[in-house]
Amino acid sequence: MDRPSARTIAAEVASGVRSAEAVARDALARIAAYDAVQPQTWIERPPAEAVLAKARAVDARIAAGESLPLAGVPFAVKDNIDAAGLPTTAACPSYAYRPKRSAEVIERLEAAGAVLMGKTNLDQFATGLVGARSPYGAPGCVFNRAYVSGGSSSGSAVAVGAGLVAFALGTDTAGSGRVPAAFNDLVGWKPTRGRWSARGLVPACRSLDCITVFTPHAGDAALVDSVVAGFDPLDSWSRREAPGPAPLEEAFTFAVPRSAQLQFFGDLEAEDLFAVAVARLVAMGGRKVEVDVEPLLAAARLLYSGPWVAERTAAVEDLLRTSPTAVHPVVRAILQGGFGVSGVDTFKAIYELADHARAAEAVWAAADVLLLPTAPTIYRIAEVLAEPFALNANLGLYTNFVNLLDMSAVAVPAGFRANGTGFGVTLIGPAFADARLLALAARYEEIAPMPQSPALDVDGKPQTVKLCVVGAHLAGMPLHWQLTSRDARLAARTTTAPVYRLYAMTAATPVKPALIHVGDGGAALEVEVYELGVAEFGSFVAEVPPPLAIGTVTLEDGSQVKGFVAEPRATAGAEDVTAFGGWRAYVASRG
Amino acid sequence: MDRPSARTIAAEVASGVRSAEAVARDALARIAAYDAVQPQTWIERPPAEAVLAKARAVDARIAAGESLPLAGVPFAVKDNIDAAGLPTTAACPSYAYRPKRSAEVIERLEAAGAVLMGKTNLDQFATGLVGARSPYGAPGCVFNRAYVSGGSSSGSAVAVGAGLVAFALGTDTAGSGRVPAAFNDLVGWKPTRGRWSARGLVPACRSLDCITVFTPHAGDAALVDSVVAGFDPLDSWSRREAPGPAPLEEAFTFAVPRSAQLQFFGDLEAEDLFAVAVARLVAMGGRKVEVDVEPLLAAARLLYSGPWVAERTAAVEDLLRTSPTAVHPVVRAILQGGFGVSGVDTFKAIYELADHARAAEAVWAAADVLLLPTAPTIYRIAEVLAEPFALNANLGLYTNFVNLLDMSAVAVPAGFRANGTGFGVTLIGPAFADARLLALAARYEEIAPMPQSPALDVDGKPQTVKLCVVGAHLAGMPLHWQLTSRDARLAARTTTAPVYRLYAMTAATPVKPALIHVGDGGAALEVEVYELGVAEFGSFVAEVPPPLAIGTVTLEDGSQVKGFVAEPRATAGAEDVTAFGGWRAYVASRG
Repeated sequence: MDRPSARTIAAEVASGVRSAEAVARDALARIAAYDAVQPQTWIERPPAEAVLAKARAVDARIAAGESLPLAGVPFAVKDNIDAAGLPTTAACPSYAYRPKRSAEVIERLEAAGAVLMGKTNLDQFATGLVGARSPYGAPGCVFNRAYVSGGSSSGSAVAVGAGLVAFALGTDTAGSGRVPAAFNDLVGWKPTRGRWSARGLVPACRSLDCITVFTPHAGDAALVDSVVAGFDPLDSWSRREAPGPAPLEEAFTFAVPRSAQLQFFGDLEAEDLFAVAVARLVAMGGRKVEVDVEPLLAAARLLYSGPWVAERTAAVEDLLRTSPTAVHPVVRAILQGGFGVSGVDTFKAIYELADHARAAEAVWAAADVLLLPTAPTIYRIAEVLAEPFALNANLGLYTNFVNLLDMSAVAVPAGFRANGTGFGVTLIGPAFADARLLALAARYEEIAPMPQSPALDVDGKPQTVKLCVVGAHLAGMPLHWQLTSRDARLAARTTTAPVYRLYAMTAATPVKPALIHVGDGGAALEVEVYELGVAEFGSFVAEVPPPLAIGTVTLEDGSQVKGFVAEPRATAGAEDVTAFGGWRAYVASRG
Repeated sequence: MDRPSARTIAAEVASGVRSAEAVARDALARIAAYDAVQPQTWIERPPAEAVLAKARAVDARIAAGESLPLAGVPFAVKDNIDAAGLPTTAACPSYAYRPKRSAEVIERLEAAGAVLMGKTNLDQFATGLVGARSPYGAPGCVFNRAYVSGGSSSGSAVAVGAGLVAFALGTDTAGSGRVPAAFNDLVGWKPTRGRWSARGLVPACRSLDCITVFTPHAGDAALVDSVVAGFDPLDSWSRREAPGPAPLEEAFTFAVPRSAQLQFFGDLEAEDLFAVAVARLVAMGGRKVEVDVEPLLAAARLLYSGPWVAERTAAVEDLLRTSPTAVHPVVRAILQGGFGVSGVDTFKAIYELADHARAAEAVWAAADVLLLPTAPTIYRIAEVLAEPFALNANLGLYTNFVNLLDMSAVAVPAGFRANGTGFGVTLIGPAFADARLLALAARYEEIAPMPQSPALDVDGKPQTVKLCVVGAHLAGMPLHWQLTSRDARLAARTTTAPVYRLYAMTAATPVKPALIHVGDGGAALEVEVYELGVAEFGSFVAEVPPPLAIGTVTLEDGSQVKGFVAEPRATAGAEDVTAFGGWRAYVASRG
């Protein structure tokens, strides 16, 4: 997909190849077209004429000889960040106010020539990782709108993911600037806490909040960073730049969790994609070391299960007390929990966090950077609406601890699931590792280019499942019609991993195969993989007779898909036909 | 007074001039003798034989060629710091436990050859600045036991102040390592938070607590610091040494509060002594700049009036819930207040503190160090027992904010009140200004030696007041007997500052003088200053007839004492006799 790049646009506008006005007209057209797909991307946009006037002002500055690093670059801003002239809602209409002044970061971006296209949707008060907690609607993943966009910076990720703007500001307390990057094939850059001014930001957890940026590529994030970063004496949480770790050598070490600590909530594709990302880092010259991430996970648990909820409550205390029903019910349930937190609990949690922080330092003693999945899996919007708390918590497994432990992080793309949704990994460093991380992310892109992203989902896309068949459902076999009648599409002709044995249950009529996982002593057996709609898959599974079952099959390339397996009783009296290499050959041998 | 110096002892023991055993015997003798005066200095001491055995072990190490920077130096430890073999009580018998291991700082001191003499008394759970909140008794100021020793590190300050040990560890959350230094003529060294390990310390406010040291001189504190400072990976609050501000040049700038922000609660001697200390710093090459200290004072108010009380509560939560009466009633009243603090309050206070911290940075932009009174005044033990909360709060005015705002500080002596109690000033710097502060404290001692300290108060000392008389009470005048009958002692024959006029109330019999403060246009008038006991002073004041009164008179040297003043009605029909230069001359002129 052709996504506009901040670097390209700025270079073109600065050199006169294109005018800022032309860039803005193009962005306005893209935005208008995408309104037919996901209008809930935005909460408020300035009138087109106002945008064009600003773009022309940039052209005038260029004509006057000004050097503008973001000349004419169209951008969007999450609607919990003040932009003068537009209301700030934090996705809560009752909370809305009209700021007199733009956030410091927006002033710096506009001074550098960037052109604001509008304010984007979010999980209300930035409380969520899904994007489904907003009265302005739930944006979906740009590649498959049945799935969440990720949140809380949902609209900003969609606006960049769909190529509407070149970059968009998000915010990140628990992962809101990274999880949506993963799902929408973006770089999500979360600088060291306090390195970017947070003045003009509606607080979520004020002591932890960071403003972030989504871009298509790491180089664009670095460009925005160079404009925005810098001490702001009027923001009490702003920090002066401190000497950080040096940029990495060609060879470097990266930490990953012990394998028992990796958790994907059953998302086998995500598990595979993480393994691929690890291999990419090794190919880049990285040496993998396994570390104990329990201190990080323990810190993460403090964020929503501990006193930091009270920090969110503090941010909207008046509204919660006077107009509780004005708050989204899921967000309200979370925020009201903060009223029950005591000061004693809070200080005890602060002590616990200090212990985790000390223990977490072992990661930096062991490796230059930490590589984690950005999110362990993804869920459909319908799923998170039905189970709003637990599934959201799952998504934050690898992000929640980062700000609590004062780390910097850049989320980078790491491939796609069969359903089109993005998977990402995050490179994490200690505080002030910003330059190191941005440089490493750029190397990751250059050395290991990502698969082409899928087409945008502009029509709504059915959810599909991959199914491995081994016997009578193979092409040309007696039950193949059960697949064709369900519009199943052949995805692969391959073999299993060499860990199976194939039995023929000769007592049945017709004779049926049983694929038995044995590990050592197994063989690679011929299979076919079909992709079919989730409803069709369900109706298919409903018709599978015992002792056969639909379980999980490991393929020759190590990936895992749904497929035919068998109960233990299947082998009783059955014939081991593994030597034939597959059902087709066995059947042929019987004539 | 002859106080043992750590530097001297260590040099003597290391070079064989004295044995560690001889030093220990001397310290044991001093301690035993002082037990007749203030046994409540100590909570627990090891048996003499155990102390001597440790001293002999030091002698053996010296004999074996070891180089020990604190060879044979006797020291004491506040009883909220673990020392293996002795119970830790935190001045609460029900809380006591026997630690398996000494605090990290004690292990470092003993490894360097120091010899532990015992555990000292404190305000229970280090909650107080007075020393009067302990079931083990209230130590008094070593120079006047009617007055508080200061706290919470009361026993440690007394042990060093009375010359029993060469140094003593205290702790400091709100000023506990500095206020007692001021009252007992000591250096109180409070390093940057986390620079000394706090492992093995009973927490007061764990996020703020520092272990500190009292010594007679700055050089001794620097020696102890060189042994104790250093990162402790097993203490989650320990910090790695960071680059601090450079040592000061010969010329430097020091900040003081705007004069309207200086508050001494009526302690005119303290006010004068602070002015003298300012003059000393100027004489050292310092340039004085006035700064706005309101952000510091505002931060200070958060400590006891805000959520940080909950941090103290968290430290002893179980005891407070199960055995509240085991806690000292004053301490209990404070700590139970923490149960009412909410998490929301806590985070809001953290935000407020961040704002104050940012505003406070202006001090370091304006000056190299900040000079403040260590404590604005001192109180008698009877006074703080009668009014336990408000007077204690007054004492923390200039110390409470230091740890909250992550500053380093060294309290140094700055003279004595007439009642013998010490007054001190504190040199304050940002975090990691430790080297700068210790060096400046040493210069302060060298360039501006302090007045000789008064004798120890071994008998109990009556409180006295200085009284300025101007008329019939002058020596040889008709009412002088009112002073002699009260054992008043002539302290000075001097004049007032040149800001008074003298009237003769000729309508009265005998004619009486009225001293009227007029500022410009006034003259220096002859007066005498007498010192008399506080009870005698009270009975004297009770007999003063109107329109005369006892107020405050400024003397020629700028100091202020109690003395005769008059109501406005005194000048009605009175004769201005200023030109005579004093009452004696006027009376003589009348023949």
